[in-house]
Amino acid sequence: MKPVANISQIPFVDGQVYFIPLGGSGEIGMNLNVYQCNGEFLLVDVGITFGDDSTPPGIDVICPDISVLRSVRDQIRAIVITHAHEDHVGALHYLWSQLKAPVYCTAFTASVARRKLGEAGLLGQVPLHEVAPGSRIQLGCFDVEWVTLTHSIPEPNALVIRVAGRIVFHTGDWKLDPHPIEGDDYDDKRLLALGDSGIEFVVGDSTNANIEGWSGSEAECRQALLEVIVKQPNRVAVTCFSSNTARLSSLGDIARETGRRVTVLGRSLFNYLQTAKATGYLKNFPDLVPTEDLDYLPRSEQLILATGSQGEPRAAMARLAKGEHQDLLLEPEDTVVFSSKVIPGNEKKLYRLYDLLSQKNVRVVTENDAAIHVSGHPCRDELRWMYRALRPRYVIPVHGEERHMSAHADLVTDEGLGAARVTNGDVLELNISEPSLIGRVHTGRLGLSGSSLVPLSDRSLSERRALADGGLMTLTIVLDNKTRLVTEPQVQFIGVPSGDIDPESLNRDLSHATEEILLEMSSRTLQSDDSLRATLQRELGALVRQWLGVKPKQLVNLVRI
Amino acid sequence: MKPVANISQIPFVDGQVYFIPLGGSGEIGMNLNVYQCNGEFLLVDVGITFGDDSTPPGIDVICPDISVLRSVRDQIRAIVITHAHEDHVGALHYLWSQLKAPVYCTAFTASVARRKLGEAGLLGQVPLHEVAPGSRIQLGCFDVEWVTLTHSIPEPNALVIRVAGRIVFHTGDWKLDPHPIEGDDYDDKRLLALGDSGIEFVVGDSTNANIEGWSGSEAECRQALLEVIVKQPNRVAVTCFSSNTARLSSLGDIARETGRRVTVLGRSLFNYLQTAKATGYLKNFPDLVPTEDLDYLPRSEQLILATGSQGEPRAAMARLAKGEHQDLLLEPEDTVVFSSKVIPGNEKKLYRLYDLLSQKNVRVVTENDAAIHVSGHPCRDELRWMYRALRPRYVIPVHGEERHMSAHADLVTDEGLGAARVTNGDVLELNISEPSLIGRVHTGRLGLSGSSLVPLSDRSLSERRALADGGLMTLTIVLDNKTRLVTEPQVQFIGVPSGDIDPESLNRDLSHATEEILLEMSSRTLQSDDSLRATLQRELGALVRQWLGVKPKQLVNLVRI
Repeated sequence: MKPVANISQIPFVDGQVYFIPLGGSGEIGMNLNVYQCNGEFLLVDVGITFGDDSTPPGIDVICPDISVLRSVRDQIRAIVITHAHEDHVGALHYLWSQLKAPVYCTAFTASVARRKLGEAGLLGQVPLHEVAPGSRIQLGCFDVEWVTLTHSIPEPNALVIRVAGRIVFHTGDWKLDPHPIEGDDYDDKRLLALGDSGIEFVVGDSTNANIEGWSGSEAECRQALLEVIVKQPNRVAVTCFSSNTARLSSLGDIARETGRRVTVLGRSLFNYLQTAKATGYLKNFPDLVPTEDLDYLPRSEQLILATGSQGEPRAAMARLAKGEHQDLLLEPEDTVVFSSKVIPGNEKKLYRLYDLLSQKNVRVVTENDAAIHVSGHPCRDELRWMYRALRPRYVIPVHGEERHMSAHADLVTDEGLGAARVTNGDVLELNISEPSLIGRVHTGRLGLSGSSLVPLSDRSLSERRALADGGLMTLTIVLDNKTRLVTEPQVQFIGVPSGDIDPESLNRDLSHATEEILLEMSSRTLQSDDSLRATLQRELGALVRQWLGVKPKQLVNLVRI
Repeated sequence: MKPVANISQIPFVDGQVYFIPLGGSGEIGMNLNVYQCNGEFLLVDVGITFGDDSTPPGIDVICPDISVLRSVRDQIRAIVITHAHEDHVGALHYLWSQLKAPVYCTAFTASVARRKLGEAGLLGQVPLHEVAPGSRIQLGCFDVEWVTLTHSIPEPNALVIRVAGRIVFHTGDWKLDPHPIEGDDYDDKRLLALGDSGIEFVVGDSTNANIEGWSGSEAECRQALLEVIVKQPNRVAVTCFSSNTARLSSLGDIARETGRRVTVLGRSLFNYLQTAKATGYLKNFPDLVPTEDLDYLPRSEQLILATGSQGEPRAAMARLAKGEHQDLLLEPEDTVVFSSKVIPGNEKKLYRLYDLLSQKNVRVVTENDAAIHVSGHPCRDELRWMYRALRPRYVIPVHGEERHMSAHADLVTDEGLGAARVTNGDVLELNISEPSLIGRVHTGRLGLSGSSLVPLSDRSLSERRALADGGLMTLTIVLDNKTRLVTEPQVQFIGVPSGDIDPESLNRDLSHATEEILLEMSSRTLQSDDSLRATLQRELGALVRQWLGVKPKQLVNLVRI
């Protein structure tokens, strides 16, 4: 089915309900889901994803392309954000001006969103509505109920969306944690009651759907962290995801129990600590020791919380490992604890940090050594529990790569329920008899370049790859109105090693070669900018290949006077 | 200790023996080890490593920098290659002309080396001596004995180096595989006898020193592969390391046992199959079905061997996964078997392939699903066995990153032996009383760029990173002898997205801005190339940052006529 560029071209039928993922289905990250009914739209989550080795260099932040919604902007009744992780709220400040709809979320999420909107200068413009946990609000024709679950950040919400006689349970990110440390436990009675009242569709998180068992509890993780930290004779530096308030709470308590004082390194940890305290979490978190006072404490009384659990080169942990942190130098017999998972793609970066730390005789403890991390997403037994509680007719796996969504669908089928597969851009009609794919809309990925969002397919971004791989040769020639050279051609290389050849004589030889090529050229070629450029590029390219063995990108600056 | 640039500056003492790793100690890959005694040098292995996300873009192959040996080239008695893996022999054809010493290795390794030397046009020049397994040869003052071990390629050799009263056991890469499928079993009696005769030093492989237990046998792997393949109803495509002759042998047998015919996709598999057969291995390997005849066979009778077990984008498996292979299109219910490990850094690339295959309903089997891969390096129980057999005084861990070498050293200490730690560039005196570090020599990494080897620290290579991250703006201006513009300044961007701004009007606006900047410029600035360039770069850079939010690299082409 060919995707349409404008969602208005989809033959929506009044009285029917449609689900359209624009991001997050077929990938982890960048969640953006759309519901449509009777000409009205509801958006759930507006997340980003991060650049990696498969995306163009220099692009760190990637947003979903929502140009397909342009023509229906006035029909968007609300943007609901389920929780405050970057892959659910991180694109709000980049995309809101294309949407201009009111935003609904609970207090913690609102606090994170407000910081982002403020940095983008949008704070006064965005109608941001704080919703109490458990609320039920009418948003256009959509009746939306917030149902608190557990995850790895405060206030992870599922939504019950009731519209045109349909009942959809949209899980957001979740797990079943009986002891979440901070925030409410999940309400199993409410989930069972919802099941009794008849959930028809679940749109659900697939991230861990290929992992058997349960994800484990923050309480177990806390115990394991305590057992590790209590044994350390000297300084302990722990890194974890900054948004994991429960983990921070555990570490605060562990510091107290083991006679240590807490210092924080890294802006993102400060931000999240502040947000958590401002919204009623971390009530017992100990007062921080200012970094400059660390030296007054014996090493055995120091507990450092540091950003950079994924080895991000500019974060605190990478700088500690390299011995380049301005405020702290780790010493032999100190301990570094990675209370986090390794996100695929970050393995080598992290192994390098482990090695740098080992070289300093700093002990490294990771989740391979002790159970000091638990995932925030449901493993297969949790999915089974949820589907046995809710007993939906159909489950629509979202938020995962192909292998996660496919394992999720298989589990659903094994449970005797219907699985409806979607991928970004699918328009799924939520029929009770059978959900059906009625069309496809254009989706895509936009990279943040400075202040612009640019399609990752933009020619300039593929040029970057060519520049990175082979560098650039520029040739500048100035011709008079009789197509004669006015001065010597200038050759410059950027990003092209000249090896054993002296770069100046290389440039001179290419300049002379250019003069000869121009002398041999027909006047017709000389008069056409395009032919002249093409001929020079071909002939000089061949020379460079012969002399250096490489094929840099070429740029001819042709000036006619 | 400051590294010296010339190994002659090291105060070697006659009668003493020295060990100097120039590559492979502190990294996996790029093995190059040097022994020195009485003014003579022996090199063991000349390997490469591969570029990754920590090395400059466009550099795929990396060799050790051996410039420190320049002044002693005439004193190098021999280059011994322990086995034919790229990280042991792969740099021979790049570095031999800096060494010009005779090369010694066994037949399989020689065959691989000859192909490389041939491609580099060096075949006639390099004195390449084939050594029979178990040989003992005098190379200058070094008495070198070849001791066959087991690994994941035919003819992996340890060396016993006897010199100036010292006895060193240099392991090369090894494991203890009682059923290696192809090639000889390891000779435990010989190893025990060597231990009895008194080994003083072991220089040993650390790759798996942080993994408990045994690496497992190729025979177990073959059984697991058979169990997987016999169950598949349709086409089976297997990818593994091309140099693993034992694995290929197993797959040939399994094809026969399961009524399948074998086809091979990918040049490197053809090369290694040919080498193996030419040197007496794979005697029972079935005749290949030409790719163009595949269609005559039912899918259930096809077994495809494909290159690209690490997800290399141009290898056969990636092209099969993308549906872009010219000779074969995988179909739903086919099976792909990755009989290989995931080398760190390749995770995401491989996960993408798994997803592409799942999307086509091709079943994917990896080492997580069945024991279809065994490592070629010794785990901790194998290391313990070896050290109990050899009973050396000291072990010098090499070939590994910090965490591997450090786990290796700890194991050695736990065994009651001495561990001597080295890293690339260390000069270790092999004293029996205690090995001691007497100096350090310069080491480094050279990237292959076209036909040149270039230091990875070369400015042109860091320019590539800047070009990749931010693209380039070029400005061309032509000034007459009164420093007046002869024609409109030309602006061109490469790799810089212009976002919502029309690129032509952007260039025009910057051209006009340049005219204005020049008008305001003092005649002194106008007359100095450097000041003029710097001023233009500063002012235009500020404008671009303001208009696009980015900071591309800038190049000013200044022509004076």
